[in-house]
Amino acid sequence: MDSANRYERGILKLKEMYGAERADGIIASLSDVAPDLARYMVEFVFGDIHCRPALDLKSREIATIASLTTLANAPRQLRVHIHGALNSGCSQQEIIEVILQMAVYAGFPAALNAIQEAREVFRERGVK
Amino acid sequence: MDSANRYERGILKLKEMYGAERADGIIASLSDVAPDLARYMVEFVFGDIHCRPALDLKSREIATIASLTTLANAPRQLRVHIHGALNSGCSQQEIIEVILQMAVYAGFPAALNAIQEAREVFRERGVK
Amino acid sequence: MDSANRYERGILKLKEMYGAERADGIIASLSDVAPDLARYMVEFVFGDIHCRPALDLKSREIATIASLTTLANAPRQLRVHIHGALNSGCSQQEIIEVILQMAVYAGFPAALNAIQEAREVFRERGVK
Amino acid sequence: MDSANRYERGILKLKEMYGAERADGIIASLSDVAPDLARYMVEFVFGDIHCRPALDLKSREIATIASLTTLANAPRQLRVHIHGALNSGCSQQEIIEVILQMAVYAGFPAALNAIQEAREVFRERGVK
Amino acid sequence: MDSANRYERGILKLKEMYGAERADGIIASLSDVAPDLARYMVEFVFGDIHCRPALDLKSREIATIASLTTLANAPRQLRVHIHGALNSGCSQQEIIEVILQMAVYAGFPAALNAIQEAREVFRERGVK
Amino acid sequence: MDSANRYERGILKLKEMYGAERADGIIASLSDVAPDLARYMVEFVFGDIHCRPALDLKSREIATIASLTTLANAPRQLRVHIHGALNSGCSQQEIIEVILQMAVYAGFPAALNAIQEAREVFRERGVK
Repeated sequence: MDSANRYERGILKLKEMYGAERADGIIASLSDVAPDLARYMVEFVFGDIHCRPALDLKSREIATIASLTTLANAPRQLRVHIHGALNSGCSQQEIIEVILQMAVYAGFPAALNAIQEAREVFRERGVK
Repeated sequence: MDSANRYERGILKLKEMYGAERADGIIASLSDVAPDLARYMVEFVFGDIHCRPALDLKSREIATIASLTTLANAPRQLRVHIHGALNSGCSQQEIIEVILQMAVYAGFPAALNAIQEAREVFRERGVK
Repeated sequence: MDSANRYERGILKLKEMYGAERADGIIASLSDVAPDLARYMVEFVFGDIHCRPALDLKSREIATIASLTTLANAPRQLRVHIHGALNSGCSQQEIIEVILQMAVYAGFPAALNAIQEAREVFRERGVK
Repeated sequence: MDSANRYERGILKLKEMYGAERADGIIASLSDVAPDLARYMVEFVFGDIHCRPALDLKSREIATIASLTTLANAPRQLRVHIHGALNSGCSQQEIIEVILQMAVYAGFPAALNAIQEAREVFRERGVK
Repeated sequence: MDSANRYERGILKLKEMYGAERADGIIASLSDVAPDLARYMVEFVFGDIHCRPALDLKSREIATIASLTTLANAPRQLRVHIHGALNSGCSQQEIIEVILQMAVYAGFPAALNAIQEAREVFRERGVK
Repeated sequence: MDSANRYERGILKLKEMYGAERADGIIASLSDVAPDLARYMVEFVFGDIHCRPALDLKSREIATIASLTTLANAPRQLRVHIHGALNSGCSQQEIIEVILQMAVYAGFPAALNAIQEAREVFRERGVK
């Protein structure tokens, strides 16, 4: 598959996962300083990885939230993926379960701080 | 719920997830030096967290494999949870997808080394 | 010991370590989104671990400050435990020594950023 | 070499790398709470390590930016070293290349967040 | 550029950096369990990133060694990149300088353990 | 204080903490490839930091064990410091308490793997 197709496929996946507005914002935030990093993100992360059919999107978002809670240093990306998880069919409670479980593997501070990001996303979306 | 019940419930969950033999081995490896750490693991990790009903066990193992691949410093626990994931209904390909996706969030070295642990578990179980 | 007792014991320990007001704030910050995480924190972290008699509270806070300085991604928890260390008999200089020593094991950036959190706590308490 | 010389040599190197004003600010931010940490930083980090002749300063800043992007929890130090890299002859594009490459080794979130720090430094210096 | 070209370009770069034999070994170690991870590594890591012209290969290897020393959990990849650094014109002393400098940013244990990997590579190549 | 004195003071401290034989082994393991890293370790880590009077050696080892358990990627250094802790008056149970407590802050895998290192050291010393 050629690069143009990977990019287009990645943009479609990004919009499917986060909505057109948020997707545009993600790309725009990189376009002045590091447009190639934005392009690799679209092509590789969304065009290659998140389009792979062997795992459903909801499970992929569960894995990503677990990873970002464990890293504990990427709150912005964590919030984006909590949006993505909700958009892919995760309930708020399922997201909380994933983060809570990380207290076991990554420690309580990682889980406690991730919960604050989840709370902010839930509040922003006006649901409970 | 009292401690005795949490411990018993944790042991049952541990055996459900990993089989009686592996569960006994996990407890035994701690019993001489730090029996209380073994007890907290049974009570809190398996009796409290992994028994929570709001997320299915397969999703919990996906989250744990994502976390342990991201940590990249606990190969023994990663292998145990790859066994647990297979026991809870994950296919080999789904486990590979989770690890492969971690190349994006935790970097390629983390994913590459986790894949070697998965390969070892798959080989040990004699399946493909 | 039953859960009610673990919870009550944890609350008492939490108030002993941080004062009633700060303890209430810690619980309240989790009560809307993830009350179970607050409960596990009280039961397991404070009711089980921090009540264990074989190590004094001052040494426990030294270990926690070392760990949080090393993690370098939980400034809120670090500040809470710097308060706890001062409450348990650590001097300001001893806290600085622990953080300073982490330059060796976790690197200078981790130590430098933790010192800024310590400075904020010291200033808030109005002592030097 | 005696301590006085290591300190003086470190101050000179610090000023060469970051300019007198920024160097003074770095020292001052530690002088009230942990003056010894400031002294070790000057003596060991700048007087010992960054004065070693076997690697040029530009390569040292490339290594440091790679390390701080990988750590992903020291944005203040990352910005200081992006200034240092520009002062030692790195182009903006070379700095972006180092950060972008870290997407491979430390993951995309680490690279994406480091790029935002680079963008802020570039904007502050009024160049592109 | 289409995928076939990215893959071919990546293989060429991989062989340029590590020699044909080591490159084949890297691919082969993944081919049974996760051939797609091998393919992404070739296409994205070597075909996209390491082929970018704006930073020389020697500087890229310095950045990678700094990152892997900082991660401190990927000794196999660190050894591969120490080979790559030597192949791209780094001297042994320059590699030691990069690792030694990481004592400052990632802590002494990370630097000490990375030095042991470097020593093993140097010994394997029979040079000093 | 001049460098010769810092080095001599560091060697004395190293021998006090770990015994002459182990101290010699630590230096020797670095002397061929990176003698300067060995020298900085002696001068800065042992001559400067571990000689500071404002915190007792036992508390310093508690902090170091907490940090190394949290890092979870330096088992060799962890074993050395468990020896050092025992030599400075820590009981086996106190060391276990520190590691066990890290389950809270750094996660259960970090604590479980550190306990295995402690068990090995305890066995080697033939005590319990």
